[in-house]
Amino acid sequence: MAGEFDLIDRIRARVLARADVALGIGDDAALLQPPLGRQLVVAMDTLNSGVHFPPATAPADIGWKALAVNLSDLAAMGALPAWCTLSLSMPEPDPVWVDAFLDGFDALARAHDVALVGGDTTRGPLSVCVTAFGLVAPGAALRRNGAQAGDDIWISGTPGDAAAALAQWSDGGTRDPVLRARLDRPTPRVELGLALAGHAHAAIDVSDGLLADLGHVCRASGVGAMLDIDAVPVSAALRNAVDDVHARRALQASGGDDYELCFTAPVSARDAIVAAGAASATPVARIGRMIEGAGIAVSTGEGAPWSPARAGWDHFAG
Amino acid sequence: MAGEFDLIDRIRARVLARADVALGIGDDAALLQPPLGRQLVVAMDTLNSGVHFPPATAPADIGWKALAVNLSDLAAMGALPAWCTLSLSMPEPDPVWVDAFLDGFDALARAHDVALVGGDTTRGPLSVCVTAFGLVAPGAALRRNGAQAGDDIWISGTPGDAAAALAQWSDGGTRDPVLRARLDRPTPRVELGLALAGHAHAAIDVSDGLLADLGHVCRASGVGAMLDIDAVPVSAALRNAVDDVHARRALQASGGDDYELCFTAPVSARDAIVAAGAASATPVARIGRMIEGAGIAVSTGEGAPWSPARAGWDHFAG
Repeated sequence: MAGEFDLIDRIRARVLARADVALGIGDDAALLQPPLGRQLVVAMDTLNSGVHFPPATAPADIGWKALAVNLSDLAAMGALPAWCTLSLSMPEPDPVWVDAFLDGFDALARAHDVALVGGDTTRGPLSVCVTAFGLVAPGAALRRNGAQAGDDIWISGTPGDAAAALAQWSDGGTRDPVLRARLDRPTPRVELGLALAGHAHAAIDVSDGLLADLGHVCRASGVGAMLDIDAVPVSAALRNAVDDVHARRALQASGGDDYELCFTAPVSARDAIVAAGAASATPVARIGRMIEGAGIAVSTGEGAPWSPARAGWDHFAG
Repeated sequence: MAGEFDLIDRIRARVLARADVALGIGDDAALLQPPLGRQLVVAMDTLNSGVHFPPATAPADIGWKALAVNLSDLAAMGALPAWCTLSLSMPEPDPVWVDAFLDGFDALARAHDVALVGGDTTRGPLSVCVTAFGLVAPGAALRRNGAQAGDDIWISGTPGDAAAALAQWSDGGTRDPVLRARLDRPTPRVELGLALAGHAHAAIDVSDGLLADLGHVCRASGVGAMLDIDAVPVSAALRNAVDDVHARRALQASGGDDYELCFTAPVSARDAIVAAGAASATPVARIGRMIEGAGIAVSTGEGAPWSPARAGWDHFAG
């Protein structure tokens, strides 16, 4: 049976090289050379089996997603990803599983030129913890606390897809492969985050649900929001999977795991935001307005008030 | 019941401030300002309940140890600790447990001026993952691959204590509080690591066992080692707890979890190493010599060959 050091060798053999990695996997710690004139951006997220992904999830998808959720955090800061570390706990050292996991992890790492520089492998219930490191010019990071009353609210992509896939899976019903890919292989909006620098006032990635995450922006910025739930783009797959408009709105408002960017920008930046979306090949849509006050008022396209059954996803309540 | 965001608020309230933290806990990612002319040193280690600590371990001790094992990795690189991130998985959000955990974590963080800048809390089997960040002058890091034939082998402290405590705990026998503290509250040898810069050729922290970790140095450096097991300092507590000299040697040679530094240095540096130990108030002892070849030959003080039942600790075999 493989041991810890065999697994580390397997992981090391797959790692991307970067000139700014002075020492990667294999010592007590990694040595990195941050570039001059950049701030370091650090995100850390853990995925636990049965909590953040169904136990039957393919290992390659777990690998992709573990890195994706962290790159999504860097994207929400407008940072350029550079390095990551990985801590992998598994019940038994399973080289076949690890190779498959690395297929997904590595595909996304290469797409964003991210070098895996360290971490550990150990025994325990299946759990994947990643720390991701990005770089940003001082003062250029997109934060949660910069939203201003009058700002447009924008969203990338088509929220609700991942939650619909999870609901299908839980119900044992139809498993739409397009929705399923949105759950298992979320696209971190790295290029969009970079393109928003200098235009957006605030940004967050939608991991807990649109209302929950927009609520974080509201609280951090000391403002409120008016959200037109029917302005949130609906994918064809979601429209096809969920007939009932109320149920669909609920998935879009409160469903987690989409990893789209929700951001605010002044009205004067509308053209720039559209251009940023085009430049990053990322669909963006205006879905509301930040207002004086607190909390989020949600309306339908006809202006009627609308509220979901629950606001979002608490990692302990789910 | 407390939720994720309550826990994060509890954690944030306890965090040390540092001028080089541009943005700490509370956004999608942290923003750090690395100093000019320094390399970044990154270590990441996870502790899983029942694997890395007995489930009955006090939460404050878990908090201390989760940070200590990572600071120990920084120490083994000769790095100055600066920041860390924490991912905490627990079955239910328990604010009393978290406060106790933070008592231990925070005590060690303050002792080393380490700021907790981010991470996450989530539901899952009890598990603590920490990423620690340190700083080192370019080229000054202590690596595993610098040992040379002819170097002295040195060890800090009194290895074997933690393994003896774990054995006592497993057997339900006498629980010596001195040994137990060495298991639950290991001392990362940060000051020693810093003082060794420019003097030691190679260093590693003893987490898996002296023979296993010295073996890593041998392989990385392409040399062998002769170790005098009876030159390894024995604590009074260990001598008192374990009568049999063979059993005691086995604990010292193969017991994990001591987090002492094992390092090599040229004979010409003996005075400097002794001075480094004194300056950092850390006991150091010469325990052998690096040699041409490969592998580790272990002898007793009388020069007789000696070998333990097992070389060390594999995180999957334990």
